[in-house]
Parts: sequence; C-alpha cells; structure tokens
Amino acid sequence: MPPPEVLLLGPGPSPTSPLVRAAQAWPLLGHLDPAFLPLLENVQQRLRELFGTANAFTLPLAGTGTSGMEAVVGNLIEPGDRVVVGVHGIFGQRFAEAARRRGADVVEVRTEFGAVPDPAAIVRAIQAGPVRLCGVVHAETSTGVLLDLRPIAAAARAAGALFAVDAVTSLGGLVWQADDLGVDAAFSGTQKCLSAPPGLAPLTLSAAALRRVAERRSPPPFAVDAGLLMGYFGADRAYHHTAPVSLVYALSAALDEVAAEGMDGRERRHRAVAAQLRRGLDALDLAPLVAAAHATPMLTSVRYPDGVDDRVFRAHLRNVHRIEIGGGLGSLAGRVFRLGLMGHGARPENVLRVLAAIGDALAAQGRAVDIAAALAAARAG
Amino acid sequence: MPPPEVLLLGPGPSPTSPLVRAAQAWPLLGHLDPAFLPLLENVQQRLRELFGTANAFTLPLAGTGTSGMEAVVGNLIEPGDRVVVGVHGIFGQRFAEAARRRGADVVEVRTEFGAVPDPAAIVRAIQAGPVRLCGVVHAETSTGVLLDLRPIAAAARAAGALFAVDAVTSLGGLVWQADDLGVDAAFSGTQKCLSAPPGLAPLTLSAAALRRVAERRSPPPFAVDAGLLMGYFGADRAYHHTAPVSLVYALSAALDEVAAEGMDGRERRHRAVAAQLRRGLDALDLAPLVAAAHATPMLTSVRYPDGVDDRVFRAHLRNVHRIEIGGGLGSLAGRVFRLGLMGHGARPENVLRVLAAIGDALAAQGRAVDIAAALAAARAG
Repeated sequence: MPPPEVLLLGPGPSPTSPLVRAAQAWPLLGHLDPAFLPLLENVQQRLRELFGTANAFTLPLAGTGTSGMEAVVGNLIEPGDRVVVGVHGIFGQRFAEAARRRGADVVEVRTEFGAVPDPAAIVRAIQAGPVRLCGVVHAETSTGVLLDLRPIAAAARAAGALFAVDAVTSLGGLVWQADDLGVDAAFSGTQKCLSAPPGLAPLTLSAAALRRVAERRSPPPFAVDAGLLMGYFGADRAYHHTAPVSLVYALSAALDEVAAEGMDGRERRHRAVAAQLRRGLDALDLAPLVAAAHATPMLTSVRYPDGVDDRVFRAHLRNVHRIEIGGGLGSLAGRVFRLGLMGHGARPENVLRVLAAIGDALAAQGRAVDIAAALAAARAG
Repeated sequence: MPPPEVLLLGPGPSPTSPLVRAAQAWPLLGHLDPAFLPLLENVQQRLRELFGTANAFTLPLAGTGTSGMEAVVGNLIEPGDRVVVGVHGIFGQRFAEAARRRGADVVEVRTEFGAVPDPAAIVRAIQAGPVRLCGVVHAETSTGVLLDLRPIAAAARAAGALFAVDAVTSLGGLVWQADDLGVDAAFSGTQKCLSAPPGLAPLTLSAAALRRVAERRSPPPFAVDAGLLMGYFGADRAYHHTAPVSLVYALSAALDEVAAEGMDGRERRHRAVAAQLRRGLDALDLAPLVAAAHATPMLTSVRYPDGVDDRVFRAHLRNVHRIEIGGGLGSLAGRVFRLGLMGHGARPENVLRVLAAIGDALAAQGRAVDIAAALAAARAG
C-alpha cells in the first residue's frame, strides 16, 4: 500500500517533483546500454556545471552522501597524513572521524555547534604544520551554519594541501564555483537541494586529487577506487559495478529542472523563502540559532522556547499537519528544530503552511500565538 | 524523454515488474518517518527469510553489490589476517582483491574461469594454516558456475574461520539457508533474482561476525561500520545516513512478490526456464560453458561457435530485437555470451523470444539455423 503523503520540510530528503518521481518508473535499461550511457554522460556534464568545474572525474556515486565522504577519505588519505578538519557540527565531526579511520593524524578545529566558525582559525591550523588535506563542511546541516570557503581554500592551496568540501546540502541551492575557489574534492547528496531521491552521491575530484590517488603507497578500497570508477564513468565505460539506473533517471530529470531554472535563480529562490521564513518565525517570537548573515538559506535551525517539548512538537507537525521537520542532533538535541526549504520544497506556499503548523503546535502546548500575524509577516516580502 | 523498452536478459539488472516500477514513484517519506520504519522493518524481516537466517543484522545497505562486498571485508578483515578466497571468476577475483586492499594475506584457490571448482581444494587451503575468513562466490555471474557451499562451510567452521558468501546472483533465485549452512556473512544485490532496481545490497552478519567486529584493533570504515549501521537498522533507529527511500519502496514491493510466490516455487521456476533454454540452445547447436549439474539456473554462459563476432551478435540482439544479453568478462571476453533469466525475467515466453533472436543473429552472420526446431525443443518440457 502506498505510504501517506508527507510534506518534507526537514533536513532531507526534500520533496521530489512529479517528473522526478515518474522518471524512476521508466523502463529499466542495462547500465551499459547504448541508450543509457548518453543519459549518464548528460548527468555527469550537468553535475560539472553545478559544481562549477571542468573536472573529468565528476559522477553520481552509488550510495549516500556518507559514501561520498568515504570515497574522498578512502582515495585521498593514507595512514599518517596530517589532515585539518573544521568541526562545527555533526557532519564535520563525521568527516574528522572518517579521516581518522583511514589512519590520518586529524587536527580538529572545533567551534561550538551552532556558533559561527572563524575561517582564520582553520587557516592557522593549516599553516601550523605540513598538511595533506583540509576538509570542511560548506552548509552544516546539523546547525544551519554556512562556512566562508574562500580564505580556507586559499590557505590550503598555499600550503600545498588538497581542499575537500562536504557540499551535501549546498549543491543545487547555492551557486558553486569549485574550480574558481580551488576545491580538489567535493561530494554531495541527491536528496537535498537537487530534489532527487536519496541514494546517489555527486562527487568531483580535481587533477591534483587524482595525482594524489596515483601516488598512493597502497591502493584505495575497491568499491571507491577513483581509477576503477573512471573505468566506468570515463570513455571506456568498462564494468566496475551496476549503476543504480532508476536513480540516475530521477537525477537526470531533477538536473533538467535545475538547468531550466538556472542556478542564479535557484539560489535567489532559496534565499527569498528563507527570508520569508525568518520574518514569520520572528512574528511567532521564535529565534533562529544562526544569524541570517552566516546561515544556510536552505536549512534553518530554530531554538525552542523554554518549556516546549521537542517530541510532542514534531509529532504534532507530522501527525496532525503531515509535515516532516527535523530535530536537533548531538548537543542540540531537544534544543532546536530544523526546517529545510530545499529544492522543489523551497516555495512560498510551503513557508506559509509550515508557519501555520508551527503556530498550531505551539498553541497545542499552551502558548499564545498570532498565526495571522506570522503569515502576514512572511507574505510581506 | 523516457528510454526505450529493452528486455533485460543479461547478467543484471533484470526486468522489474509493473508494481515494482510504480513503487519507486510513491510519495517520498523521511527515512525516520513513522510510516517508513515499519516498511523498512518488513523488508529486513523478509530478507531474513530469504537468506534463511535469524540474524538481527540483516538489512538493505545503500549501494551496489560491490558495496556489500566492501562492507563485509571492511568490517571483518584486519591487516595481516589470513583469508582464503575461492577464485573461479571475476567476482571471486574481486573478493580477493577487496580483501587484499584491507591488508589481508589472501590465499587464492584458483580454478580456470568456466571450469567447475573443487570444493575440496578450498577446504585444503582452509586447513593449511590459521584462517580468519573464507570468502566464496555462490553463483559466479561471470561464468555461470554454481559452487557447492556445504563442505566449505563445514571446514570453515571447524577451523574457527568466518564464512562469507557472495550471494549477489543466487539470492531470490535459489533457496538459501544461511544459518543451517553456517554462513557468517552474505551480501547480495537487488537487481538480479529479486528483480528490484539496482542500488541496494542486502547484507546479513551472524553473531560470530559481529563479535569479530567488536574485537577489532581499529574501527571499520565509517560508512559501513556494522555497529553504526545497526544504530539505524536496529531498535534505536538513530540517524547514520539517509536511506534510499524510493529504492526501499521498490525492494519492499519486489519482496512481497517473492513471498507471494514462495522460494520453493521460485527456485523451481528458475530451474524450469533454464532447462528450456538449454534444450533450445542445443537445438541451435550452441554449447553452454558449464554442464547443467554445476551451472547456475539464473545465468547461462554460452560458447560462441567459431567465427561468430561477439559485438555484432550482441548488437543484433540489442538493436534489432531490443534484448540485452551479456558478453564475456576477463579471459572469457569474446568467447561466450551470457543469458540471464532472473526473477521477473525468468519466464517461458522470454526463453522463446531470446532463442528466436539468437537464431536470427546467427543467421545474420551467415549460419544455417532452424529456429522452429529450437522453439519446439524449448517448449517440449
């Protein structure tokens, strides 16, 4: 029996468009079929455009965003490498842990979750010793903090280090310029601002990153070996694994929608609905965790007022209003909720719907709220 | 634009049923949604039934069959472990290579690709020294050889070694009894006899395997860490990654179809169509690579007669008849073609259709064939 329809306004997956949903049901082709390969090549080319790169190695890896992170550390890190990681949320913490498990000597540059990290601190850590790779999270989904990549990229380049970026939540929501910035490795997920189903990790590696792979003392893990992956995703189209064909169909349809809108317009749309949301939250006396100037437009963490119960609040949205939102992770569990307005979900009508539902959930916990004022504030943009 | 309809009778992906295709287009739910979790639990329970196991750790891993293999070696192997691998095709070779890349001291028990391996040789290798793990491929997709697991499982158990099996092509086509056999780790793919789209790897680990993970000197890679995976797939349902929700929908629908048929009936069906195919091939003077007694019913490798060009032959089937079949891999490239009659594709009408197309492709290369005789032979079962 088909599942209920729930509006997905949490940290992902985001809502998929009717065309994207339908594409998954297209007749399955073989992963080496002459009609499938041009479709795959088109996906790879569109991903290059989205990442802002000419990297030949740009592909949709089978697996989750975490698999994309694993592919980056699995290919680019060897035991003993000094690696600097910016940790200001769960996903930075995960990046550091994944690198440690590859034997890296990890220097964590930590900032309290929810606070805005100082790029200069990461720059200083890069400059403090020889460094093989610097890894950071662009849009930290666990807090909603957006990191300024430029000074870190410049420092990594000056130090001869590879610069690797978790672009899971930012790709498809913000304009990306990987080559211009000097990014050597970036990975994303399809279920955030691209609004395709989860299960693929867009991944790009620069020529410098591939040189690093070629110079390894021992080969990378078989499943993520950059050379073997390019056997299939490059001109040879040699068998390495069976690509998730129906997910590639869906991603292809989603990327067509992104291209039709254009990334400038798409970033504007994400920023506009985020601003609407913030005006409405303010009218409900709710405070975002992160100031607008440093926040990710696609994900907004909101502090709970004293006495509001996280589980009851989110269950009210899910069960009464059929809206999914996210809870806090790690040290923020129970203290914030997270609203994702991503991709196909980043629309004004969704802002109004979730503001009304939030107001109703607060009222159900005995708080006085003026939902009409919140909706009017959100509309007045 | 939707792709053309091609009948998938190669080594996978196999054809998906209309219900399975449609399930992917169901409205997306969050991976922690209260309506999604019972569906996931049902998938896990049905996979336990298919593997023939009570293992709590039984789950659909995000990624390809190769990711499943990587999860097995990533969790169960540490540097220096002596590992015995049966290598009689590309996938055994891959298993050995994946283990070596985890630092294992791999003993390969090699058999010429296409020949039937002697389980006693693998047993002797197990007994020749201390052994941490023995890995074999049940149904070798690159050749169509079926391995007798029982003596190897017994020897592994007697030696105190873990027994790990590549069940990619056999699960859902042959009755599996992992607990009865003494299998500690098995992984599969969804795009073979389960007839779900590619992108998930069913995976099961025994209590002994999990003890091995707990006793590791260093933790496994983050993305495949068995303990972290069970945080999500166990009772806690804690976030570790975003499950590929729409693929889980499709797998759920596919497993419902498997359960409705029953595994006994499903194995009978695979065996019956394989026998039909062999009768028809014989009438066309085509010789299978592997004798029926040692062959996988779901995949049949067929020797090319002298002078038949592999590329021209397969292109004729694909472009004229809209049928995908597979070529040979490794040392068998150009020497055999591979016919998969898997899951939803394992039907008598597909046997007749592909026999007619094969006859036509031979005729197009100037050979005299009697297609009517081949179809009559196939029908006469």
